[in-house]
Amino acid sequence: MIDLSAPPFSSRHIGPSEADQQRMLEAVGFESVSDLVAVAVPEAIRSKDRLKLPAAASETEAITELRALADRNRVLTSMIGLGYHDTITPAVIRRNLLENPGWYTAYTPYQPEISQGRLEALLNFQTVVSDLTGLPVAGASLLDEATAAAEAMTLARRAGKSKSSVFVVDADALPQTKRVLATRAEPLGITVVEHALDGELPECFGVLVQYPGASGRLRDFRAVAAAAHEAGALVVAAADLLALTLVAAPGELGADIAVGSSQRFGVPFGFGGPHAAYMSVREGLQRQMPGRLVGVSVDADGASAYRLALQTREQHIRREKATSNICTAQVLLAVIAGMYAVYHGPDGLRRIAHRVHRHAVALAEGLRGAGLEVVHREFFDTVLVRVPGRAAEVVAAAAERGVNLWQADADHVSVACDEKTGATEVTKVWAAFGVEASHVALDGDVLPAALLRESAYLTHPVFHSHRSETAMLRYLRKLQDKDIALDRSMIPLGSCTMKLNASTEMEPITWPEFAAIHPYAPQAQAEGYVELIGTLERWLAEVTGYDAVSIQPNAGSQGEFAGLLAIRAYHHANGETGRDVCLIPSSAHGTNAASAVMAGMRVVVVACDTDGNVDLADLDAKIDKHRDTLAAIMVTYPSTHGVYEESITEVCAKVHEAGGQVYVDGANLNALVGLAKPGEFGADVSHLNLHKTFCIPHGGGGPGVGPVAVRAHLAAYLPGYPLHNDTPVGPVSAAPYGSAGILPISWAYIRMMGSEGLTAATEQAILSANYLARRLAPHYPVLYTGRGGLVAHECIVDLRQITKETGVTVDDVAKRLIDYGFHAPTMSFPVAGTLMIEPTESEDLGELDRFADAMIAIRGEISKVASGDYDKTDNPLRNAPHTAESVVADEWAHPYTRTEAAYPVPSLRDGKYWVPVRRIDQAYGDRNLVCSCPPLEAYED
Amino acid sequence: MIDLSAPPFSSRHIGPSEADQQRMLEAVGFESVSDLVAVAVPEAIRSKDRLKLPAAASETEAITELRALADRNRVLTSMIGLGYHDTITPAVIRRNLLENPGWYTAYTPYQPEISQGRLEALLNFQTVVSDLTGLPVAGASLLDEATAAAEAMTLARRAGKSKSSVFVVDADALPQTKRVLATRAEPLGITVVEHALDGELPECFGVLVQYPGASGRLRDFRAVAAAAHEAGALVVAAADLLALTLVAAPGELGADIAVGSSQRFGVPFGFGGPHAAYMSVREGLQRQMPGRLVGVSVDADGASAYRLALQTREQHIRREKATSNICTAQVLLAVIAGMYAVYHGPDGLRRIAHRVHRHAVALAEGLRGAGLEVVHREFFDTVLVRVPGRAAEVVAAAAERGVNLWQADADHVSVACDEKTGATEVTKVWAAFGVEASHVALDGDVLPAALLRESAYLTHPVFHSHRSETAMLRYLRKLQDKDIALDRSMIPLGSCTMKLNASTEMEPITWPEFAAIHPYAPQAQAEGYVELIGTLERWLAEVTGYDAVSIQPNAGSQGEFAGLLAIRAYHHANGETGRDVCLIPSSAHGTNAASAVMAGMRVVVVACDTDGNVDLADLDAKIDKHRDTLAAIMVTYPSTHGVYEESITEVCAKVHEAGGQVYVDGANLNALVGLAKPGEFGADVSHLNLHKTFCIPHGGGGPGVGPVAVRAHLAAYLPGYPLHNDTPVGPVSAAPYGSAGILPISWAYIRMMGSEGLTAATEQAILSANYLARRLAPHYPVLYTGRGGLVAHECIVDLRQITKETGVTVDDVAKRLIDYGFHAPTMSFPVAGTLMIEPTESEDLGELDRFADAMIAIRGEISKVASGDYDKTDNPLRNAPHTAESVVADEWAHPYTRTEAAYPVPSLRDGKYWVPVRRIDQAYGDRNLVCSCPPLEAYED
Repeated sequence: MIDLSAPPFSSRHIGPSEADQQRMLEAVGFESVSDLVAVAVPEAIRSKDRLKLPAAASETEAITELRALADRNRVLTSMIGLGYHDTITPAVIRRNLLENPGWYTAYTPYQPEISQGRLEALLNFQTVVSDLTGLPVAGASLLDEATAAAEAMTLARRAGKSKSSVFVVDADALPQTKRVLATRAEPLGITVVEHALDGELPECFGVLVQYPGASGRLRDFRAVAAAAHEAGALVVAAADLLALTLVAAPGELGADIAVGSSQRFGVPFGFGGPHAAYMSVREGLQRQMPGRLVGVSVDADGASAYRLALQTREQHIRREKATSNICTAQVLLAVIAGMYAVYHGPDGLRRIAHRVHRHAVALAEGLRGAGLEVVHREFFDTVLVRVPGRAAEVVAAAAERGVNLWQADADHVSVACDEKTGATEVTKVWAAFGVEASHVALDGDVLPAALLRESAYLTHPVFHSHRSETAMLRYLRKLQDKDIALDRSMIPLGSCTMKLNASTEMEPITWPEFAAIHPYAPQAQAEGYVELIGTLERWLAEVTGYDAVSIQPNAGSQGEFAGLLAIRAYHHANGETGRDVCLIPSSAHGTNAASAVMAGMRVVVVACDTDGNVDLADLDAKIDKHRDTLAAIMVTYPSTHGVYEESITEVCAKVHEAGGQVYVDGANLNALVGLAKPGEFGADVSHLNLHKTFCIPHGGGGPGVGPVAVRAHLAAYLPGYPLHNDTPVGPVSAAPYGSAGILPISWAYIRMMGSEGLTAATEQAILSANYLARRLAPHYPVLYTGRGGLVAHECIVDLRQITKETGVTVDDVAKRLIDYGFHAPTMSFPVAGTLMIEPTESEDLGELDRFADAMIAIRGEISKVASGDYDKTDNPLRNAPHTAESVVADEWAHPYTRTEAAYPVPSLRDGKYWVPVRRIDQAYGDRNLVCSCPPLEAYED
Repeated sequence: MIDLSAPPFSSRHIGPSEADQQRMLEAVGFESVSDLVAVAVPEAIRSKDRLKLPAAASETEAITELRALADRNRVLTSMIGLGYHDTITPAVIRRNLLENPGWYTAYTPYQPEISQGRLEALLNFQTVVSDLTGLPVAGASLLDEATAAAEAMTLARRAGKSKSSVFVVDADALPQTKRVLATRAEPLGITVVEHALDGELPECFGVLVQYPGASGRLRDFRAVAAAAHEAGALVVAAADLLALTLVAAPGELGADIAVGSSQRFGVPFGFGGPHAAYMSVREGLQRQMPGRLVGVSVDADGASAYRLALQTREQHIRREKATSNICTAQVLLAVIAGMYAVYHGPDGLRRIAHRVHRHAVALAEGLRGAGLEVVHREFFDTVLVRVPGRAAEVVAAAAERGVNLWQADADHVSVACDEKTGATEVTKVWAAFGVEASHVALDGDVLPAALLRESAYLTHPVFHSHRSETAMLRYLRKLQDKDIALDRSMIPLGSCTMKLNASTEMEPITWPEFAAIHPYAPQAQAEGYVELIGTLERWLAEVTGYDAVSIQPNAGSQGEFAGLLAIRAYHHANGETGRDVCLIPSSAHGTNAASAVMAGMRVVVVACDTDGNVDLADLDAKIDKHRDTLAAIMVTYPSTHGVYEESITEVCAKVHEAGGQVYVDGANLNALVGLAKPGEFGADVSHLNLHKTFCIPHGGGGPGVGPVAVRAHLAAYLPGYPLHNDTPVGPVSAAPYGSAGILPISWAYIRMMGSEGLTAATEQAILSANYLARRLAPHYPVLYTGRGGLVAHECIVDLRQITKETGVTVDDVAKRLIDYGFHAPTMSFPVAGTLMIEPTESEDLGELDRFADAMIAIRGEISKVASGDYDKTDNPLRNAPHTAESVVADEWAHPYTRTEAAYPVPSLRDGKYWVPVRRIDQAYGDRNLVCSCPPLEAYED
């Protein structure tokens, strides 16, 4: 009998063939995958049924269904504004960056030597932000403008001198910003006061000014800033980057902090995201800044090199008084925005801004000429029109003409011009207002004289050298070639799940029908999106065993925060306002504690035993001690040590019995899908990482998507719609569906895998981790195995004894792996001095063996150090990585050979990756490099 | 006054900024571009008016218009067959190969050291063809199945023993193949006889068998082959590669030659092309094979390396009895087809074939069961149904259900199953025939037992190692990284015009509405295509000054042939059948003469003076001698020496006066667009190269598009529709519009440039060539300058004296340029011992200077050889290119340093391209490397 069915997509997603899988099983000592799973995964948590998902679709079928969904979205011209503006993504950037796995499959640049390309691109972004905002230090992006504003609020509280708990927000701020600020303020005891900023300022620790305002109004906030400073408060300006090419920089007007979105620099709407928000600060605040910061350092040869300056982030995230849990950035989108500026240069940006402004002015003049009332005299791109009682009618008339406007209230319509606005759009808008005219004269400016921009920006040569498409193309290629991404080799990062991001999953996200929908376009224009999102939420609920899912959180950190808010709101609704203790095992991701603090909880650390499992005795003790105030426990499952803890159901029961809720961190969900469901084995809430388990690419350090999933009793407490005020818990993100634009990726993955495929992927991930553990065990101690000596989906190899004996460190091994063409595993998390390896199901046996061979060869090198065959300090490990320049140098002074340096294994002779810099100065760069956030030990003291 | 208009696309297409252009003008000694043009381009040929084209569209506007055109194409399921079958392009291949400039902007692999990636990919293709056809030697692709069949016909005539002038073609051959054979046969005096191949074979020099037949019939042609061989005739099998995974290989049945299309291996319909045709031959015929052949050789270190084996091609193209003018291949499409086989492997291909076959069988059984007559009992994928008088009705009923069938005649409908066919399609087809059924049982085979395939194929590991998407992705990246394409650096190939292939131009070609239309779908389903093609033909006519254009020829060689056929037909129509002499200057491209021979003409070479210009005295003499038989002159303008010959109008007049026609080869049209029109300055016909002047990428050696443009009196003699028989001249390609699928590229280019942009591009191309000439002149003699010491759009630097003095050859310089990160200029064409450099308008000043700096640095190295500072043989030039391995080697025995070898200029330290192999053995590889075809000297003797 011939099998005529096409191989399922899962056979393309999963690396090893059936024959190879058999070989791996033999090595691990099992007859079948189900035998392996039966031993590895505790019976108590295992699901009995297959997942209730539609049968796996082929790639062709999935793309056809996505096409049909896309066709149910209607792309109108959106002049809604509200911080989202239509923009032209230069095609050369779309094709060679956004659609290029060399960029989108890269990981966060924690290993700076193999990340110089995207670090340079991020530095471009930081330069754009810093120059345009007139503030000296800009970070490498935040999640969205609203959360960036919230981060600025807490930064102001941390850094300011005022003892007030009041944060004043501009009445003309974006509505979603106000709502997210409220969500974030309440658990922290901050009172947000809305204020017109015209009269006297209330006592406060900070003020947020929207510049220009949501209504379009452009005003000089120097006086507000001076008053705030006088009162010891900090000033946050939420500013539009394009406007800043024409008007004075926030830093010049007195802002201490600037935040905003870089979306209109070439990043499509995507029905809300992902986009890169920005933050920049004045001198003195940089060590308080949340998120990542790229800095310049030097390598071992003294050459200039880029790296992440982690200190600032770690400063506040490690302490219990952490008020930010931000880890992820929006790297891919920040890179696009930076490249948009590289492509246009300062002159080009200025011209675009002028064009936008003059269209807005022409639009306003036409309306005024017809007797309509335009509310503000001075604006940049947004025109607010007073049409008493007629706003809905005007908006409807515009929609009929293919244009979305914004109904500010029953009497006001606002119209935002953008890069795509031309005479056609202006004329249509006029017609919607009942104005018959066609001549659009672009000759007027209404920018206040006092606000005209005089300072220069983007003077660096990079913004002047890539103006032709050919030059831009080559710049992108050159940067890409400096980096290791999944298109070159395995990225075995424990806890990060660097699996395949399939082309079929990626293709739809740049279709205009998904890319060009404004987040606040009428839902009737986004039917396809709404259905896709609803389906995805249902599928995720089925996979996790929960009852309800919100896709809104646009990073794992936001999902955690949302999950804890749900727990908090649940307790409050039950009158248990005193429940504020969050138990966290000492092995947890650092983010967990930071999120708990943000959600108004007190962190109590629960000890772990030597295997990294929760110490049940200590758990009992902590529960006893905090029984009346116990809000929740947060555990990661399988544990951060990569083990299926046998006691998980017991842990859940104990906490429930004490009236607490159980939060299971979904970071390691890739080891559970299809085998076990947190919602069934005892948890009440989880966040998932669609960028780990569900194939959204890491993008070089974002975007991420962190849906929150809950059992029925918590469903009412999921995040609310950002523009409404009718839910127990407010929104956690600026857009209703967070990073909606990339959800087709996860939808396609689940659709093409089906129950069998998803389960097979999990099984293969477990098998592959155990295969690597078996191959490495004779050479390195493997830590924390569970039943049968098995690990879950990742394994930890211990370097501590080796380091003690030979001086060769985890860092040396990680950097030496670069010479072998590999990205290092996760370093020193969860245990210092170890490497955590997660192969994922997508790596084929050839690549797994190539990696194991490299690790074993490196072990051989270490032995030579131990035996004295290699010098203690001048050896290939300590000197790794080796650039081409360093091994081609005319003088070779090392006691090992050039061949040993560059070609330690023969396979490297075919297409070796040459690292562009040598090891970056340890004094700056030697920090714990982990997937998301630092370990919890810092919370202990 | 602020200029608010966005910079036009032309400012992205043209490399140098206005400021840089000014700097370049100063270097060349002119105040403005128009001053330069006034001196460089002869007044006599200059156009007075701007081009009558629509005003330049922005990229956004152009893509919107293309979207609207695409939306006017209707994508139905096409089960038409006729050699074109629907197929699934694996998304990983589409995104990372077809949509990746690293692949599509590469040039023909004449410089094998920097082409190892695509050469390996082509070798995969050759292996697929050779294995499946059972013939030992396969070429690296031909243009389409019909022209491949024509090449096979002439090969059979050259190689066979028979003196007959008859070529027998299977009555069941594809209709377009029959028509193209007829077009090609007539001028060569070959008589094509259609024959059922059932009875006795007529006397002939060759037989073509379609296997399976156009009607679907699958038959054993062993007896036919035996009879043919007995009579001294060769047997050509036109075979379907997918069928060959199940049935006996042509080579096993006695075919000497196999041809066919590889389209259904993952290459979209594209309304007819481009697709890669194939040819394979039995041992002994390989040196007669037209087109390119990739072979394996060794490099200077003895490592295995790929290269083009040019001999076979040159063997026949150089001689006056050439009967092929083929130069271009369809590399990009051959690479896709080869990768499709890599991705599926032999098992996957066999499964696809089984699935296709069983759907066809189920379809036939369902029809038979309902009492309909299925004509053939044995078939692979195509079912011919007899429905007396009802064929049109059935086809219409199918179309209503979204399926295109083929009306073979009034009484027969044929239905071809393909990779996408499933139960849904079968049921729809049944319904169209009036059969109500829904159960599709896939359990029957009707393959003749004697034809079942028993031999193995695709046993090489490459067809077994890249089955997961991750593995496939990395294989593509690894190959891409071995090569230099336009995304890395300038490719300054004289006569090849390696300009920008903009992303906006490229994006539409993979939209389903352009990609998924069958070439013989009803024209009503291709309204958008028909309009786009009509517009493009009109625009090309306007640009060239001709009256009519045919887009059908799918390569420059085919365009030349079509142009000469038009001249021939014109003379014949005028009763001047004796006019058969074609004058060709000795400096012409070799293809010119080969085309003339194919068109039944005798080549008479006209001498050139020492500047490469046509020797007017010799022209007069040759005209006098052949006055009564003069058919045409073929000249290239500007000349192949890169000079605007002043005498061109005089040359045209002299030929016209003698009754001849003037053919201007459009190879150098990039130096004329917007400045002069061949159709106005005296020519009657030209072919254009859309892959040179009009931005279709070279694809690593194809696709090309070579439209033919004529003045009104020749319009009636343009190529005919392939399935009709009503035109004076038949078709030259298998598809009505040739490579229609890539025409949106040229359409977009013209649409976005407009008259000003196109003219500015030409001017910049001239300026850039003269700038390089000025920079290089102090270091290398620059040959063949025209008025004011100016060149046209390319310049020739002379190495002959240098070689004489130092022993450093053109080859040494070309290979040394690789160490500097550059693709070499055109070598030894049109003059041996020289390099011809064409920078194009797309290179920015920085890149031009980087190239000039490299050439000057190399000149410095040459001087060291001359002075004895470098050894005569062991020097960086002779040893170039240097691999990383060679400069990292533990032993360094050369008298120059590693730094001199690898980093002769400091800029190479940032992102150096490392060549994967050293110089490939000269004994095999040292042939003249030119853009299209070898020089004409070979015709002289």
